[in-house]
Formats: sequence, C-alpha cells, structure tokens
Amino acid sequence: MQNFTMRPIGFVRSPFSEPGEVPRGLGAKHEEEGRLEILPEFEPGLKDIEGFSHLYVLWVFDRSHGFELVGTPPCDNQPHGVFASRSPYRPNPIALTVVQLLRREAYTLVVRGVDMLEGTPILDIKPYLSNPPESELKRGWLAEAEKKSRR
Amino acid sequence: MQNFTMRPIGFVRSPFSEPGEVPRGLGAKHEEEGRLEILPEFEPGLKDIEGFSHLYVLWVFDRSHGFELVGTPPCDNQPHGVFASRSPYRPNPIALTVVQLLRREAYTLVVRGVDMLEGTPILDIKPYLSNPPESELKRGWLAEAEKKSRR
Repeated sequence: MQNFTMRPIGFVRSPFSEPGEVPRGLGAKHEEEGRLEILPEFEPGLKDIEGFSHLYVLWVFDRSHGFELVGTPPCDNQPHGVFASRSPYRPNPIALTVVQLLRREAYTLVVRGVDMLEGTPILDIKPYLSNPPESELKRGWLAEAEKKSRR
Repeated sequence: MQNFTMRPIGFVRSPFSEPGEVPRGLGAKHEEEGRLEILPEFEPGLKDIEGFSHLYVLWVFDRSHGFELVGTPPCDNQPHGVFASRSPYRPNPIALTVVQLLRREAYTLVVRGVDMLEGTPILDIKPYLSNPPESELKRGWLAEAEKKSRR
C-alpha cells in the first residue's frame, strides 16, 4: 500500500515544553499565545493570510510513539475509539488545532489558542472558512462525560 | 530535517471520479453522500464514533502533484498564498473536510458532504467538537471575492 512522506513547513514556538503543562480534559481552555514560525522558503505561501481570523494548523504529535485503537481519555472513565477522540496515539500522528490569528510578522504567525509543545513540527496551515450549523452538532461520549462531571 | 511517513487508514467511496465533477468555487455546496471505508484492522478505532454528528476527515490529494506557493484559485482573479487557500498543490498534500456522519456500518462510515474523489486515501478521522464564535470569523480574500461576485 502506498505511503506518503510529509515534511515540516515550520515549527511552533509555544509556552508549553512538557505535555503535562497543556490544559486538558473537560472544559480546558486554550487561550495561550504562541508563534507559528514558517520556514523562510515557504513564506510566499502566507500571502493574504492576514485577512483570516482563524486558521487550521495541522501538526505532528512528534513526542507520541505508537498508537492505541481504543483508549480511555483523561476526561472519562470509559474507553473510546481513537477516531472518536483526540488521542495523540493515532495510526497517523497528525493533530489539528484551530487557532486565532493575531498578526503576521514576516514568516511568523502570532496566534492565540496553542495546545502544541515548543518545537512541534507543522505540516500545513489552512484558512478556517465556516462553521457547521451549531444546532446540528452532537458531541457523543464527550457530551455524556461532561454531564457526568457536572453531577 | 525529519520527515514523517503516513499510510492510509482507509479509502473514500465517492460519486466523483474526476476533479471536474466536484462542486468548486464560491458558494459550492457539498451535499453528496459517500462512504469512508476504514481498513478492517482499524475498525476498533471507530468505537463510539456514532455519537458524533460531524467528523473531520484528513485525506491525501493523491492526484495532485507538486506544489505552488502562490496561485490564483478558480473563485478569484487574484493570486493568494497556498496557506491562505484550499489549493490541492500544497507542500504536504493533506486535505481536510468536515462531513456529517449519517450512520456507521461495521468498518464503513456513511457520510454527507464528500468532496473527495473515488478511491482517495484517508489518513485520519477526528470528532468535530465545537465551533469558534461565528461573530469572530473573518474570511479574508474569500469574503472579498464573494462580494465582487455579487455585484
């Protein structure tokens, strides 16, 4: 079966250097500022990015090794499938974070909402365009876990 | 610099077999149903996914070759950076689609909103959890292009 080779387009500058420092679990807020330092060779690819308020950042869980198809997340006491969770132990260790773009400084994007560790490799950045209808969103086991935690 | 090797976790069954068949450009609607056929070895990773209404699908632009840091998209007459667009010609050819989950059939997810071609390799699936505040969303050059197209 065909494999695909990905390479960093840049690296995250983050206030977090250890996984334990990143807010996790139910209701965790990601308000920290950080910097997405794009490699200078890719700077032309940032043209006109300043007009977008939010960006998707695709990055690598480079400090997680191996994967676990079913696991119990920190915010619940029940096991769930990896594709129904944000677990870092994935068959392809790609992570996705929506950040708010505060400003661009040449080949650096200053953003709010980082949950990556210092030095994390970035694979791609995309503009965030639209929300699915809020009224249609269902959040499965996570909504259940939140209900339990409020009891 | 470190590279990362990704492999398919499954493949898309789509009504689209050629890029020209996928709705594109301003106001394109993605309402088509399709199937995400996960490889049987990864089926346990789908546990509890049925509870989520929407999913992120990360997939490979496997029929696009090379990348273009600045390009003019079909919906505008101005060039924009690749990281400010959804262009398939990206340094890492990863695509991201939000689909609505209609139902699960064993290791297949029946979804609405496919914009992938038949046979597209899937890298990851994640639950869609929450929207950024609609009132804060700014859509840069795309909003401008929409305004121009309505004149």
